[in-house]
Amino acid sequence: MQHMDNHSALLNNAVAALTRRTFWTPFPEMPSPKLYGETAQVAGRSAVEALFGCDYPLEQPGEMRRLATERSPYGVALDIRYPVCDTESLLVSANAAEPAWQAAGPEGRVGILLEALGRIHKRSFEVAHAVMLTTGQGSMMAFQAGSPHAQDRALEAIAQAWKLMSEVPSQSLWEKPQGKNPPIVMRKHFEVVGRGIALVIGCATFPTWNTYPGLFAALATGNPVIVKPHPNAVLPAAQTVSILREVLAEQGLDPNTVLLAVSDQSESTQRLATDRRIASIDFTGSDVFGGWLQEHARQARIYAEMAGVNTVIVESTDQYAGMLRNLAFSLSLYSGQMCTTPQNIFVPSNGIETDQGYKSFDQFGQDLAEAIDQLLADPRVATTILGAIGSDATLQRLEVSASTGRTVHASRALEHPEFPNANVRTPLVLAVQQADASIYERECFGPISYLVATDSADASVRLAESLAIERGALTLSVYSTNRRFLDAVTSASRRARVALSINLTQGVFVNQSAGFSDFHATGGNPASTASYTTPAFVADRFVVVQRREHV
Amino acid sequence: MQHMDNHSALLNNAVAALTRRTFWTPFPEMPSPKLYGETAQVAGRSAVEALFGCDYPLEQPGEMRRLATERSPYGVALDIRYPVCDTESLLVSANAAEPAWQAAGPEGRVGILLEALGRIHKRSFEVAHAVMLTTGQGSMMAFQAGSPHAQDRALEAIAQAWKLMSEVPSQSLWEKPQGKNPPIVMRKHFEVVGRGIALVIGCATFPTWNTYPGLFAALATGNPVIVKPHPNAVLPAAQTVSILREVLAEQGLDPNTVLLAVSDQSESTQRLATDRRIASIDFTGSDVFGGWLQEHARQARIYAEMAGVNTVIVESTDQYAGMLRNLAFSLSLYSGQMCTTPQNIFVPSNGIETDQGYKSFDQFGQDLAEAIDQLLADPRVATTILGAIGSDATLQRLEVSASTGRTVHASRALEHPEFPNANVRTPLVLAVQQADASIYERECFGPISYLVATDSADASVRLAESLAIERGALTLSVYSTNRRFLDAVTSASRRARVALSINLTQGVFVNQSAGFSDFHATGGNPASTASYTTPAFVADRFVVVQRREHV
Repeated sequence: MQHMDNHSALLNNAVAALTRRTFWTPFPEMPSPKLYGETAQVAGRSAVEALFGCDYPLEQPGEMRRLATERSPYGVALDIRYPVCDTESLLVSANAAEPAWQAAGPEGRVGILLEALGRIHKRSFEVAHAVMLTTGQGSMMAFQAGSPHAQDRALEAIAQAWKLMSEVPSQSLWEKPQGKNPPIVMRKHFEVVGRGIALVIGCATFPTWNTYPGLFAALATGNPVIVKPHPNAVLPAAQTVSILREVLAEQGLDPNTVLLAVSDQSESTQRLATDRRIASIDFTGSDVFGGWLQEHARQARIYAEMAGVNTVIVESTDQYAGMLRNLAFSLSLYSGQMCTTPQNIFVPSNGIETDQGYKSFDQFGQDLAEAIDQLLADPRVATTILGAIGSDATLQRLEVSASTGRTVHASRALEHPEFPNANVRTPLVLAVQQADASIYERECFGPISYLVATDSADASVRLAESLAIERGALTLSVYSTNRRFLDAVTSASRRARVALSINLTQGVFVNQSAGFSDFHATGGNPASTASYTTPAFVADRFVVVQRREHV
Repeated sequence: MQHMDNHSALLNNAVAALTRRTFWTPFPEMPSPKLYGETAQVAGRSAVEALFGCDYPLEQPGEMRRLATERSPYGVALDIRYPVCDTESLLVSANAAEPAWQAAGPEGRVGILLEALGRIHKRSFEVAHAVMLTTGQGSMMAFQAGSPHAQDRALEAIAQAWKLMSEVPSQSLWEKPQGKNPPIVMRKHFEVVGRGIALVIGCATFPTWNTYPGLFAALATGNPVIVKPHPNAVLPAAQTVSILREVLAEQGLDPNTVLLAVSDQSESTQRLATDRRIASIDFTGSDVFGGWLQEHARQARIYAEMAGVNTVIVESTDQYAGMLRNLAFSLSLYSGQMCTTPQNIFVPSNGIETDQGYKSFDQFGQDLAEAIDQLLADPRVATTILGAIGSDATLQRLEVSASTGRTVHASRALEHPEFPNANVRTPLVLAVQQADASIYERECFGPISYLVATDSADASVRLAESLAIERGALTLSVYSTNRRFLDAVTSASRRARVALSINLTQGVFVNQSAGFSDFHATGGNPASTASYTTPAFVADRFVVVQRREHV
């Protein structure tokens, strides 16, 4: 358990950053050869390609067969075969690993997790390439969100867990005065004890960024973890689990403290999730399955991030061009396949004032469409930003949605210069009226946005608030030069318990949430039940068991 | 909002005590005239008696009628009439109070709560007398548990909330380096926002001690609170709510931030608990109603303390007399009507070794019965310890249980020297076999305990562990001179996630849990879903809503 010594400075800095929330990261987001090594990119890519058509090197108890479930949105044939293990074996093995993991204590556990995270960091390009091929993200995004930014979120979870655990003293001497008599004296011991096996269910779009917080928070607080990746994005999870198991084994601990559950049958996930031995579930995905879990996996604490309907409120701007560029990028990035992508843009039907003069609703739509076209004019840039469409369901949704409003920007298919079979699509933007709520109030996952002509800017605020409260939202964005209007939107964001971005016109996008500074989701509206990373995300993953006796 | 200045030293000391967990309290437990004032006791009692037969002075919105629901276990006619308010009016009023309470901020809210707690402390005798008359607790216990110890738990909740809230910075400057270009700079604001209306459902036995943690934690974190007291113990809640409303009104805040919901119809509590505006529920009471809440009040976070089966494991002792005295007191205190009272005493059927030589199972039973009789020999002492039986259901249970085992100590009715109509009973102790699990594995609330002849001391440990895991337990106690045996019990307590008391032979009893040192319940077995007072008890009562914009 010598790892803690090597990582204590990192941990202390991370704990300090948690409550400062200024810019901080130990994991550089630029995929620079100087920072990551001259050969790192090629080596990472090669390591992934070497797995194509092979059995993934992971040995777990209860293996029944091998299964390849992934279908790359880039049209690359992966055919990597993962072990499918008997659910009962996984549960029994995880339970068997628990006492030693518990006995390692907060310091032992956190040291091991920081060591594993350091190794994950060293393999950033390898994980990033796995993320890119399985999710359809563009290469830059796959690197940043899949590796350093995901590592930030992992470290954040570890630091938050460490902070809370280290505030439980391991023992105390309790001396109760008895007037003139000697005091009553007791020695009390306090132990942080996990709740039991944690199940972490990954999503198809961010298999590390959305998996790491729950995975590392659960492990740090003393729980064995079963990672159930989305069938289409197994590789990043397999890499992560393998590195953790490697470090555990080196330390003489049971590698089955972390297990991978691969399956393409949702029934098997349902059986696992409702097993009474599963004490907590981290889930990222649809509100349908999230709702199912909340309804049926009643034995478990559930930390869920689900669907939401994100809104941009446009009232006025003094940087019209910057606003349009920013919005165009937000709508295009990863083809709107982010839980934080805006779906609805509320613009008053009678237009807005800007630094370039009055713009009618229709003019705004034309200008936004043009900004999108400009952003995506260069096919190489376009495919890097857009990535590929991850699922047939999204392609179908895009097709069906095309007739649900007046076309502001039509979605087109683009050729990918490197991957001829990739499904690349530009954003679809449709104009509708405020009264068309039945169209825009549902989440339309993918590159589909509605430009909604509202009765007034005030109506936009009321509508955005009620949408967030009823349907959930992970982000809310506003453009206005009127401070009183911004105050009203701030109040609405407070009532709807949604994070607000104000007048983004530069290099920050509403879709993005920075570790150690931005809280991702609030856990306070239907889009999520938890937040990366508040104390609430970690605190209930362990209990304190005490014992006391007279000295 | 000047209150914080007056109380900041107290708050800082309380926050420091949270993580030290040595002995600390600002609220003396001795009802001494020197500490509380020469006339405080008489004045407190008079203030309560002045309410008999009157309308309780509390004005709330939506009052429909007045209702007296209390029936004192001491046979005193209280006939205090409380307002019964329309549920919808309470919910609407609580919601209306939320924005101003939110705007007061953590410092404003905590200052007001500390001021109110100080006033509650000044009226300790008055609250204590209300607790005694409504619950049947003895006078000393009613004072200690009802006033200073409950105030400790309130302060603990406030301090824990303050600690977590104060670690969210109100703002930060985020400067992201951009190589040779100027950094991207954003100002970010972070706001602690409550979840919405909190419902705090009190119990019949500890109307302050078990109500204060949820009440003060919910208020501190920005939530309006509706307190729903048990119909038989309304007065202590009414006093508390009134003091809070008084301080709120003085500060120009809406007194409806705290409301009292009086009803003797469980249907009305069910309607309230399942209303979608109720964001959290604190509940102390039966596992039946606790289970109902978990099943039906799905919209709310639930912090519940329910039934459990507490066990004492006796393996050996080097203080036989001290052990028996301690156990006799634990069984007698408030006639076993504490959630922490041991129900089962596991003794190997082949007896135990002690400092007074070998004791057979039967001998142990005789000696325990004698220790109970000695403790309760003086009727004045006896009634102070025993208090009165709180409900007819407990009296009936006592009668029915008498034939469920071989009598070790029969329950007798005692005359109360001051209250001739009080139902006072000595403990019933019955001997059963390990195989009689169907008898002793259910909670038998009240002065009913089972002396269980187990196959061996090791069998006792296995049984205690599985009982705690299956049925829940708030306490576990062990007597042994064998360190390896104690280690085994410690491991069992960790697996069952139950607090352990070892070799209590002096003036500390397993029933007792000291604020700022002992965690009460763990939230890790079926007896409870939360613990007084871990960060988990507080952290999920608020969310963080942020906003960001370029500087």
